[in-house]
Amino acid sequence: MSVYLKDIPLDEAQAKLWEELTRHGWAGLLGKEQINVDEFALDRVLAEPVWAAISSPHYHGAAMDGFAVRAESTTGATITEPIDLEVGAQAVYVDTGDPIPGWADAVIPIENVEPLNEFAAISADPRHPKSIRIRAAVVPWQHVRPMGEDIVATQLVLPSGQALRAVDLGAIAASGQTSVWVARKPRVAVIPTGDELIPIGEAVEAGKIIEFNSIVLAAQIRSYGGEATRLPIVKDRFESIQQAVLAAAETHDLVLVNAGSSAGSEDYTAKVIDSLGYVFVHGVAVRPGHPVVLGMVKRSEADASGRRYVLVVGVPGYPVSAALTNEIFVKPILERWLGKSPSSQPTVSAVITKKITSPGGDDDYVRVVVGKVGERVCAAPLSRGAGVITSLVQADGIVVVPRGIQGLEAGERVTVRMIRPIEDIERTILAIGSHDVGLDVLAQFLARHQRRLVSANVGSLGGLIALRRGEAHLAGSHLLHPESGVYNLPYIRQYLPNQAVVIVGFANRMQGLIVPKGNPQGLRSLVDLTRDDVRFVNRQSGAGTRILLDYHLKQLGLDPHQIRGYEAQEFTHLAVAAAVASGRATCGLGIAAAAQALDLDFVPLFSEEYHLVFPREFYEDPLVKPLLEVLQDGEFRQTIQKLPGYDVEPMGKLIASLEVREN
Amino acid sequence: MSVYLKDIPLDEAQAKLWEELTRHGWAGLLGKEQINVDEFALDRVLAEPVWAAISSPHYHGAAMDGFAVRAESTTGATITEPIDLEVGAQAVYVDTGDPIPGWADAVIPIENVEPLNEFAAISADPRHPKSIRIRAAVVPWQHVRPMGEDIVATQLVLPSGQALRAVDLGAIAASGQTSVWVARKPRVAVIPTGDELIPIGEAVEAGKIIEFNSIVLAAQIRSYGGEATRLPIVKDRFESIQQAVLAAAETHDLVLVNAGSSAGSEDYTAKVIDSLGYVFVHGVAVRPGHPVVLGMVKRSEADASGRRYVLVVGVPGYPVSAALTNEIFVKPILERWLGKSPSSQPTVSAVITKKITSPGGDDDYVRVVVGKVGERVCAAPLSRGAGVITSLVQADGIVVVPRGIQGLEAGERVTVRMIRPIEDIERTILAIGSHDVGLDVLAQFLARHQRRLVSANVGSLGGLIALRRGEAHLAGSHLLHPESGVYNLPYIRQYLPNQAVVIVGFANRMQGLIVPKGNPQGLRSLVDLTRDDVRFVNRQSGAGTRILLDYHLKQLGLDPHQIRGYEAQEFTHLAVAAAVASGRATCGLGIAAAAQALDLDFVPLFSEEYHLVFPREFYEDPLVKPLLEVLQDGEFRQTIQKLPGYDVEPMGKLIASLEVREN
Repeated sequence: MSVYLKDIPLDEAQAKLWEELTRHGWAGLLGKEQINVDEFALDRVLAEPVWAAISSPHYHGAAMDGFAVRAESTTGATITEPIDLEVGAQAVYVDTGDPIPGWADAVIPIENVEPLNEFAAISADPRHPKSIRIRAAVVPWQHVRPMGEDIVATQLVLPSGQALRAVDLGAIAASGQTSVWVARKPRVAVIPTGDELIPIGEAVEAGKIIEFNSIVLAAQIRSYGGEATRLPIVKDRFESIQQAVLAAAETHDLVLVNAGSSAGSEDYTAKVIDSLGYVFVHGVAVRPGHPVVLGMVKRSEADASGRRYVLVVGVPGYPVSAALTNEIFVKPILERWLGKSPSSQPTVSAVITKKITSPGGDDDYVRVVVGKVGERVCAAPLSRGAGVITSLVQADGIVVVPRGIQGLEAGERVTVRMIRPIEDIERTILAIGSHDVGLDVLAQFLARHQRRLVSANVGSLGGLIALRRGEAHLAGSHLLHPESGVYNLPYIRQYLPNQAVVIVGFANRMQGLIVPKGNPQGLRSLVDLTRDDVRFVNRQSGAGTRILLDYHLKQLGLDPHQIRGYEAQEFTHLAVAAAVASGRATCGLGIAAAAQALDLDFVPLFSEEYHLVFPREFYEDPLVKPLLEVLQDGEFRQTIQKLPGYDVEPMGKLIASLEVREN
Repeated sequence: MSVYLKDIPLDEAQAKLWEELTRHGWAGLLGKEQINVDEFALDRVLAEPVWAAISSPHYHGAAMDGFAVRAESTTGATITEPIDLEVGAQAVYVDTGDPIPGWADAVIPIENVEPLNEFAAISADPRHPKSIRIRAAVVPWQHVRPMGEDIVATQLVLPSGQALRAVDLGAIAASGQTSVWVARKPRVAVIPTGDELIPIGEAVEAGKIIEFNSIVLAAQIRSYGGEATRLPIVKDRFESIQQAVLAAAETHDLVLVNAGSSAGSEDYTAKVIDSLGYVFVHGVAVRPGHPVVLGMVKRSEADASGRRYVLVVGVPGYPVSAALTNEIFVKPILERWLGKSPSSQPTVSAVITKKITSPGGDDDYVRVVVGKVGERVCAAPLSRGAGVITSLVQADGIVVVPRGIQGLEAGERVTVRMIRPIEDIERTILAIGSHDVGLDVLAQFLARHQRRLVSANVGSLGGLIALRRGEAHLAGSHLLHPESGVYNLPYIRQYLPNQAVVIVGFANRMQGLIVPKGNPQGLRSLVDLTRDDVRFVNRQSGAGTRILLDYHLKQLGLDPHQIRGYEAQEFTHLAVAAAVASGRATCGLGIAAAAQALDLDFVPLFSEEYHLVFPREFYEDPLVKPLLEVLQDGEFRQTIQKLPGYDVEPMGKLIASLEVREN
């Protein structure tokens, strides 16, 4: 009963998985059921091919409203030498779709017919003249929809493995079938475990975590075509988890246990599986996600297909790890059980915009946003943290850095497995630079104009460098030039000397000290930062706010080393505010909006200019045009003006236009 | 109350539609409802943005199992000069996820800690030594997951208009929300009308048509995110339809009436709408689909939002017209009502493989299959018939020939709006040529090997021409050379003189006369075809079967004009059989399988060779490799051998390999 964690490569783990599933009768279609052909069959997967019971049409029908005739009785008819046909014996009125009489083999459209004599007494209906005159011959089968035009009886209508679409249902019904055999939906149990977990809706307190992984896992299972059962949270007790796993295994095709998949003192998943069956994989060299457990658990009796052992997957606890583990291991199983051909994930080739360091032993799943900048498709990495589920929410795709590679340099070519539709890339505006909450609002307004604005936050200077490398359409920047007191321009001259660039105003933002409610330390200026009781939290080097701080510290003759916490770095305004809100710091420098967001106080110090910097080619690109239009939109300007400390006076104004210097 | 049909351009019709919807309060979001954050919220569309109620994590938590410490208490610790910390006062054991104490600011992983003295009496647990020794300093916030790392309270988690994915649900739950506002699902009524319609499952007879359009329309509505109500079939009586439409309009947001949308004597849709409100479009210049009716019908009272008029769409009756009308008019309405950004349909640029003639006044929707042949993406048109729903089932995409253009020449560049995922193109093998039922079976086997085999049937000669133009990976061909008695080779020399080609055997097929059960006319040979009581049905010029017939007629000295029906053309073996089964012909020439499929008799005449012809570059292409492997697969060979009249002896054999002639 030794349980230990040893990472093995992903392909090896998957090979073992399929070996075990095959051994226990789980390698193919799980089972099938017969369902009616109606709109609720949508998306079900055919477990058997559909063969046509009847032809469609199943008789020769009129393709036009008109008179069914025998073609040879019209031979020789011309404008000057018409032929008259007696209605009843030689011609019969038919509506579109009506069967034509057995003796007829063509239809003359009603508009090509002259009703010869007065209409029959019963009505003035064009269908009932006594005879008709025609002035053109028809050929056999003209304007007739022949039997079997669409479907011929006994033909294959649809192969098995097809996920049914709306038109498929029509073809099946047209072929005379009233029911179809579809794959039974795999039943997957999701068991959340952990003393620290509380159900969604319960009040949170420190040390308690809202249990939401089971929602993500269950929703994924549904999207893969399975049926998920979310079971109640189980405490970290061996017996409780054992009992829950065994009960779930009796009635489900697959059991997911989340988390406790690692090898810590309270990680029971592997031990539980071992006690009820056996573990065959513990640890997979994938990041995030490596503490995965795969094992088989023995049911009290075999199912109808003789299957006695049930797969249990120990899913790691970090949200990103959990979601990726499900995608990597469970999705292919469900596809196999449903008889679907494995989904081919769209990929694009891109250049990575930032250096990535990877643990060399693992396949590393890096979340990225993707945009097409000029002719280059660029992938900008998002947060790497296994706990940062928003990195999956924002991700356009995943770059897998394979094991054996220690990382990637900025500018290297990578393959992105797309999560968003590939075609979205063409309407994506990629902003790399300094973060501003206004960009989030801008993204929402742009969505109305068929544009996606995606942002990667690397600070102002990082944004200019991204522009230089041709990896972004624009950069948000608020870089103060300490010598001239001018924003951005001197830096652009320095970093983008050979590029035509347009600088557009966005907003003036008040920067100041973010302090706890009531400003308990009574901070008033930067000088106060050097006090012993003050613990500051800083922004990363290169960030505009950092440069602003250093500029003013120098003006005041203050040594940064006098400030406790000067070396503590956060990457966004909101993260700085969060540090203050949590008590980790007693103040930070940032924008008023961030302070307000976390119900903190704000000590305004200086107004700064936040600009949008565009290479001229993108400034003039139709892709970017709606963005410039939104800057003039009254509703948008009002929304931004309402943000605390914002002034939209400069919004949309041309600050500068730099041409390429010819030497 | 004048109701007439006059086609107007699509964009004009759509402009009128939005004008009317706007006028009556239907231009935006339909309504919203609050639902729980759980797996059943999947795919619902956010009607309001989601803001974070709490941060995630909402406290500083340990990122590793270990001891929480104050970083400064570790300063100076080295391998040779360790520092000891007292457990309780200076170090506290924390599991991953536990909150760290207020005084702590870092975590030392358990594996970097030496338990100094014997474990506390209560257990041998590493968590309970009296003190610990460390041999390396930690920096502040090391191995701590800071509050707000993922989500900061009050930040925007998701914008409105987002269709919820699994990971989105996780982020929403993590942000402390337990419910979300989503767009109410639009309620759409589907009313099938027509005296000729019978419900699915009822016995068919001539003149009766299985009503399946409502299934397709309802399933489409579901896939667009709406809720569909399929109402019972209504007979072609003005009052009945009027009553059904009015009742549906009282309780639905949109009513679809199918069909009766044209201007024939029994087409009541426009008249009914006119009687209950008004028609604003009757006829749209789109093929298939042009008799579309758009009108507004007045409810007995306004809904909660003050909307009194309800849109009614008269959907044309032909299945392809119905499905396309729904896609073109209804889908954008539902997207708007759900607040979704309009779906961007992926497109590819392709060359069309066959001449297309279009009515110049209409936008013409041509269904195509798409494959990538070498570096060229090729689109092969499928059946054009508005009644042929299988053309939509088989279609990979749609080529719209815009109005004002009379058609397209083979080889012209077109834009294909893809129905299948674009990435499927890369695994598609495109076969253009003569049809064989074995190709359908081959397609099924290839699906197991991540390959799609799509076929366009243009006859053997058409296939060779497609190969010459580089528009297919292979051609199925059974062209007898009358002079030599050899199959295919002489034609390939003639039509593909400058191409390296590989010919692979597929099967020998028995060709013969397809005759009614019992062979009532006692047909025995081709000579019998000249009898007065025989009505033959032929294959199209260029088809291998047609050439075979002409060859044998010539051998026998028979004049084709002696054969009644020689000029009647069908494009597949099954269509020939269907003609015989229906009594439209008394015999045709074809393969035994087609006769058996329709329970007909077969008079075997000659065995013929059916080959697969590959340009060498594709024969050697990894894309095609699985196809060649399937030809060696015992299960596949058995399946084909079981087809009536088939002999798989030549299957997979190299018949000939032709190199390019150097002159």
